[in-house]
Amino acid sequence: MFQRRKSRKIHVGKVPVGGDAPVSIQSMTTTPTADPDKTLEQISRLAALGCDIIRLSVDNEKDCAGLKVISQASPIPVVADIQFDASTAIGAVRAGAAAVRLNPGLVRDPGQLRPVAEIVREYGVPIRVGVNAGSVGTDVIKQNRASGMSSREAFVAALVEAALRQCEQLEALGVSQIKVALKCSDVPVTAAACRAFAARTDYPLHIGVTESGTRARGIVKSAVGIGALLLEGIGDTLRVSLTAPPEEEIIAGKMILESCGLREAFPEIVSCPTCGRTEIDLAGLAQQVDMLVEEIKSSGKKIGLKKIAVMGCPVNGPGEAKEADLGIAGSKSGEQLLLFKSGKVLGAYPAGEGFEQFKKELLKSCR
Amino acid sequence: MFQRRKSRKIHVGKVPVGGDAPVSIQSMTTTPTADPDKTLEQISRLAALGCDIIRLSVDNEKDCAGLKVISQASPIPVVADIQFDASTAIGAVRAGAAAVRLNPGLVRDPGQLRPVAEIVREYGVPIRVGVNAGSVGTDVIKQNRASGMSSREAFVAALVEAALRQCEQLEALGVSQIKVALKCSDVPVTAAACRAFAARTDYPLHIGVTESGTRARGIVKSAVGIGALLLEGIGDTLRVSLTAPPEEEIIAGKMILESCGLREAFPEIVSCPTCGRTEIDLAGLAQQVDMLVEEIKSSGKKIGLKKIAVMGCPVNGPGEAKEADLGIAGSKSGEQLLLFKSGKVLGAYPAGEGFEQFKKELLKSCR
Repeated sequence: MFQRRKSRKIHVGKVPVGGDAPVSIQSMTTTPTADPDKTLEQISRLAALGCDIIRLSVDNEKDCAGLKVISQASPIPVVADIQFDASTAIGAVRAGAAAVRLNPGLVRDPGQLRPVAEIVREYGVPIRVGVNAGSVGTDVIKQNRASGMSSREAFVAALVEAALRQCEQLEALGVSQIKVALKCSDVPVTAAACRAFAARTDYPLHIGVTESGTRARGIVKSAVGIGALLLEGIGDTLRVSLTAPPEEEIIAGKMILESCGLREAFPEIVSCPTCGRTEIDLAGLAQQVDMLVEEIKSSGKKIGLKKIAVMGCPVNGPGEAKEADLGIAGSKSGEQLLLFKSGKVLGAYPAGEGFEQFKKELLKSCR
Repeated sequence: MFQRRKSRKIHVGKVPVGGDAPVSIQSMTTTPTADPDKTLEQISRLAALGCDIIRLSVDNEKDCAGLKVISQASPIPVVADIQFDASTAIGAVRAGAAAVRLNPGLVRDPGQLRPVAEIVREYGVPIRVGVNAGSVGTDVIKQNRASGMSSREAFVAALVEAALRQCEQLEALGVSQIKVALKCSDVPVTAAACRAFAARTDYPLHIGVTESGTRARGIVKSAVGIGALLLEGIGDTLRVSLTAPPEEEIIAGKMILESCGLREAFPEIVSCPTCGRTEIDLAGLAQQVDMLVEEIKSSGKKIGLKKIAVMGCPVNGPGEAKEADLGIAGSKSGEQLLLFKSGKVLGAYPAGEGFEQFKKELLKSCR
């Protein structure tokens, strides 16, 4: 459907990022890095949910000591987030970080980069260049504005410039295992910056929208920004930033990848919105189907269907759900449930019996 | 940032769609159209939330009678959704429908279209051509597959073909006030179909992802699909389809438009995700700020700030929130709150006092 951008492949621990690697999901711990027990507990929960790579803040020696314990026991690669003091990166790599994240806005002196470059080369770990609004000087934006750009265009150009400059500095120091993030809280700016940077380099991109606000708003902003880029083939790893527990970031990330057809939801359950034609409790039926699927999956069985449709009425039911492997729809009067399989109607049943028949068909497909 | 596609402008009642008109938000009632009281009650609630155009199912004469009462009293234009019997459209237009929606898959006999074309021309109301999976024959998909297309490509081509053919038939009958929707439950297919159709015509597009599944999943799918198209400049009116109350469709629609910079959220509130550095209850603080803003707005005051930032710690706070008009951030120790205004730090205060100072600054901006 869409061609994925060909990016350079790097490795964050055992997880490949870029090239033909699947788009990985990241999050960040909210526990103190200096507390390995708490942090490992959180990492385990996130890994079980589908988190591929975890980042944690590393600001000082205490954090490095915590990181040492964490990186050895963590089921997924651990990235050290370095802010104020670039030299903390040295301790972090020695403590087992699978990658370090630097913000070029906070590492303005290239002299600080040399020892960091040496240690990542020695240990063979990549650097993530994380550019955000804090990375660009207001002077650069002003300059861009003066040359006739709109304020958004000026911001995009400044973000791209900051990322390119940092990558050049790292390459000059012999570091080529680089991935890059360009993020801000404005979705069109974020998308435009990633697009412009993607066109000019082959670095793998970590995508996301930063400071994305309260929960519901954050999910929408992230889905729009990350989704738009993924549908253009841009993006090798992602993080959904939410002012919410990191568990929700993983779930939202998985839903975005599934929406873009980049991860299979087995089986995908589609349901129509209700309208004045709906005579059954459709939200209830969809929920019932959802729970049945989860129940079967958690029993260890593998459902052999790609798509299940739950439809309110026969108007759109069999038609719109033509592509579904198994479907269930309310009848016109609302008294019966229609079952259909690969576009063909199997039969009409009273509600309770209809659901039992549906369950039977579902179980038949299991391996 | 992005150029909006130049589409033909039509009018759905008083609401312009296409051309330079703002992207409007639609939903569909879940009440019986034959029950005007219930339906009008739902429409009023949706209009108050920001719904611009409402659609309701019209299947028979009883529905037309209900529609007559509804269309006269509704605060927003009412679109009649016609399915089985195209001739119902005639009664619907006479009953005051501001537009009719036809599904070409269900109107295969062009002869049925002539009287519909005559009535919409007489009353000056537009037709929405609503194409979905139910509109395309499996034979067309098979044919496309045989010519070497992938199953997704074959589906896209079939959707575009069905929409183009229906538009041609309507134009041949003298109808040019047309808007078009191409929807299915697969996001990449939906986006590709809209993109291909948009490139070939100037009809305004109604965008959305159909059968978008249970609530959270539906919001993500819609945000990805609708958002990606809007960021390309495609889309003149939208509906978020959810298996949930239509109120949630409106709220999600507004959040998608705001995310794309197509509708201003006054003020926009951004907040950082928490991380191991956060020493304050950031989700709580963000919630507090959210409530304060809503309180001020509902008192009738207009806040004169575009962007408010709520940040967990001083690392990213003042830096990332440089673009914010007013910001509040936790201090390193978590004991104080930092206030900043247009990038400059105003001061550090104990928590309670900090929030009061924040409130004072917010109120200062009000008109």
